[in-house]
Amino acid sequence: MKQFTSVHDVNNINALVAEALELKSSPYAFQELGKNKTIGLVFLNPSLRTRMSTQKAALNLGMNVMVLNIDKEGWALELQDGAVMNGTTVEHVREAAAVLGQYVDIIGVRSFPGLKNCDEDYTEQVFNKFVEYCGVPVVSLESATRHPLQSLADLITITELKTVNRPKVVLTWAPHIKALPQAVPNSFAEWMCKADVEFVITHPEGYELSEDFTQGATITHNQDEALTGADFIYVKNWSAYEPYGAVTGTHPEWMLNNEKLKATNDAKVMHCLPVRRNLELSDEILDGPNSVVIHEAGNRVWAAQVVLKQLLQSL
Amino acid sequence: MKQFTSVHDVNNINALVAEALELKSSPYAFQELGKNKTIGLVFLNPSLRTRMSTQKAALNLGMNVMVLNIDKEGWALELQDGAVMNGTTVEHVREAAAVLGQYVDIIGVRSFPGLKNCDEDYTEQVFNKFVEYCGVPVVSLESATRHPLQSLADLITITELKTVNRPKVVLTWAPHIKALPQAVPNSFAEWMCKADVEFVITHPEGYELSEDFTQGATITHNQDEALTGADFIYVKNWSAYEPYGAVTGTHPEWMLNNEKLKATNDAKVMHCLPVRRNLELSDEILDGPNSVVIHEAGNRVWAAQVVLKQLLQSL
Amino acid sequence: MKQFTSVHDVNNINALVAEALELKSSPYAFQELGKNKTIGLVFLNPSLRTRMSTQKAALNLGMNVMVLNIDKEGWALELQDGAVMNGTTVEHVREAAAVLGQYVDIIGVRSFPGLKNCDEDYTEQVFNKFVEYCGVPVVSLESATRHPLQSLADLITITELKTVNRPKVVLTWAPHIKALPQAVPNSFAEWMCKADVEFVITHPEGYELSEDFTQGATITHNQDEALTGADFIYVKNWSAYEPYGAVTGTHPEWMLNNEKLKATNDAKVMHCLPVRRNLELSDEILDGPNSVVIHEAGNRVWAAQVVLKQLLQSL
Repeated sequence: MKQFTSVHDVNNINALVAEALELKSSPYAFQELGKNKTIGLVFLNPSLRTRMSTQKAALNLGMNVMVLNIDKEGWALELQDGAVMNGTTVEHVREAAAVLGQYVDIIGVRSFPGLKNCDEDYTEQVFNKFVEYCGVPVVSLESATRHPLQSLADLITITELKTVNRPKVVLTWAPHIKALPQAVPNSFAEWMCKADVEFVITHPEGYELSEDFTQGATITHNQDEALTGADFIYVKNWSAYEPYGAVTGTHPEWMLNNEKLKATNDAKVMHCLPVRRNLELSDEILDGPNSVVIHEAGNRVWAAQVVLKQLLQSL
Repeated sequence: MKQFTSVHDVNNINALVAEALELKSSPYAFQELGKNKTIGLVFLNPSLRTRMSTQKAALNLGMNVMVLNIDKEGWALELQDGAVMNGTTVEHVREAAAVLGQYVDIIGVRSFPGLKNCDEDYTEQVFNKFVEYCGVPVVSLESATRHPLQSLADLITITELKTVNRPKVVLTWAPHIKALPQAVPNSFAEWMCKADVEFVITHPEGYELSEDFTQGATITHNQDEALTGADFIYVKNWSAYEPYGAVTGTHPEWMLNNEKLKATNDAKVMHCLPVRRNLELSDEILDGPNSVVIHEAGNRVWAAQVVLKQLLQSL
Repeated sequence: MKQFTSVHDVNNINALVAEALELKSSPYAFQELGKNKTIGLVFLNPSLRTRMSTQKAALNLGMNVMVLNIDKEGWALELQDGAVMNGTTVEHVREAAAVLGQYVDIIGVRSFPGLKNCDEDYTEQVFNKFVEYCGVPVVSLESATRHPLQSLADLITITELKTVNRPKVVLTWAPHIKALPQAVPNSFAEWMCKADVEFVITHPEGYELSEDFTQGATITHNQDEALTGADFIYVKNWSAYEPYGAVTGTHPEWMLNNEKLKATNDAKVMHCLPVRRNLELSDEILDGPNSVVIHEAGNRVWAAQVVLKQLLQSL
């Protein structure tokens, strides 16, 4: 693997999951591989799970980790080519990325969308500039349109916990008070469309995802119908793709609760976290036996570790 | 040892001090013990000594360290059970703590009191939620009511430097301009009450500590009387316990200076730091031969290291 | 080497450069030297290159690294001796530095000038207090008046890339919109004055550097004349030394571009970064074949590593 920015960088997702589960059973088996190798984790936006799980994965592989909160410890980056930098930006991403690439063997980058300009976000202008200029393999720690380490951890979790050969997996929109990115649902959708699952997406009208990510999925506005017989329910809010970044309705009735679980196949409930309790998901679900959100968060380590292992092997 | 949140987690404080002093003479003797073990240091409030000394202690034991400034690098945590999270909090401590526990073997947590609501602080609502939900052993890096790593370092310092078998140790209130927590004096008091010392607390009227921490101590409002014959003087400001968090008087005459040292047994002067010079303690003391505050700060490493060693041994 | 705060701490700069280049070819040859040694990197101001390159250098030597952003993670330091600390400063540098010295074997400190009070900055009041009170060897990560790790990396770069025995090196002032410190040009000047190069400084009237740093340099206000026959051009903005910290003129015509390169000996263009594109340096230079700024930034690792190696050897 030469980079990890989406499912398209993976040859065989089932083999990748199998290898991740091997690492989970022998976390320290490849410490020679990472010896004297360094990963730089560059955060343009805050992070808890991604930071800690990727750091842990790298340490398991014997790597060194350097964390840079570029927004807090660094300075404002210029992204526009040709800009006359006589304003507030202090360094161009061309230099910042290229310099970071001098100090590390692999770079992880987190960069959220602005949710103002669809084209800017969906062409991944910030993230792709790091990829273009840093000169070393890049791992996405979540970009404007995707969160592939999360999606891989989700597939690992489904593979571990499924009780039928081809489980029904339902991605359901959930209420929120803020306009959130589409990165997690986009990414989950494109991974599930390639996985051995029956994949259904359900959301209120107006919350259609970009079709680039949902080819092959069944899409419905009827949440009850979608949940019927579900083995896994993936709960997540997102803002509208059209009009871009809009909150086109609040739909509090879309919050998952135990009542809605009744029609499922005793479905396991997933969420990428952080989750707003009693807004996206009820306490009764999160504190009940169907929630697997902590287990899922734990699998972030093995998702990151298998990716870093493959990147190290191709250095 | 299964956790380290107060002196009550310690079977034998003298044995713990003796073991700490052994580690001080052989800092790297137990590096196999911490191999592939990770401690997460979670700061809800700023730290210098505690962060650096605990990190150094963990490194001495061969551990990996991950630091998370959750207030700055993360987001606002919800602490209230049952909350409908439609406001400014982004993640509930139930998830945040449980997820962190997935990535580390031991968690250190620092959480200051609000000094508004005595019951909330003295039941350690924030700190105890981490203990309850993280699923791994917790070390206090200072909580609302206690700072046990500081107190252990203090006892190590007294044990090292004492010139009589049972020294007289005086905790004296000092002036300040802000309302400070009672955590350090509470904790120091409950450790000294169990140590082989003659322990005296002196403070102006109105600054009585909670009796839960001072059983067995001699308490007086007469600073001169308290200092007479003292072998160690522990200088510290704190706000009132009743009315909770109040600054009930400034009492500049309580600042320790060389004149007040005359009645002591050439007492060594301690302070947990940071110290406000010429407000809590005069320059002449801090720059003179009686101050042991830097030596005391250095002992923070061995306090942390012996605690981490015992926690590692019980994993 | 006992400390590294300026070129005056170096016996033989050519031998130091040669040793740095040996480390560049065998980065991991001295990992036993740094085993169980810790460097603390203390930032009173933000950093990207210096933080990452020094961390990488320390890791290459087998050291542990602890980073402290004292302005963000810590609190305001008092610098004035004798101060009654009843204001906003929480800890005196005497204690802060001495305590840090308890936890690490070497300290790196970054402290920018205020650019208000020349005497305060040029006597290095902040930086020197760390040196005085920390009790361990100090590496400058840039102080008010010097940036010696940058200058050493610059000399390494010139030594690697020169095509004539005694290259002509020109330090040229560049336009900017802010008042910048004189640390980089001061430091570059005092290193170049000791190096085997023909050294010329050119700047508009009013931007004279302190003579303490430029003894032996040719100084001219005629940029064209200075650039003629140049082998290396070091581009940098700085504010006036007299009146201290002033921006006495903007001089947009001083920006380097390809036209100005024509009179040079196909000069290599250097800059310490961050650089403001199309203000200090044109895109055509930075994206063209003459720019060596990324290579130069990469050499920051070997500059830091040779200095840390020598400090470790003298512990």
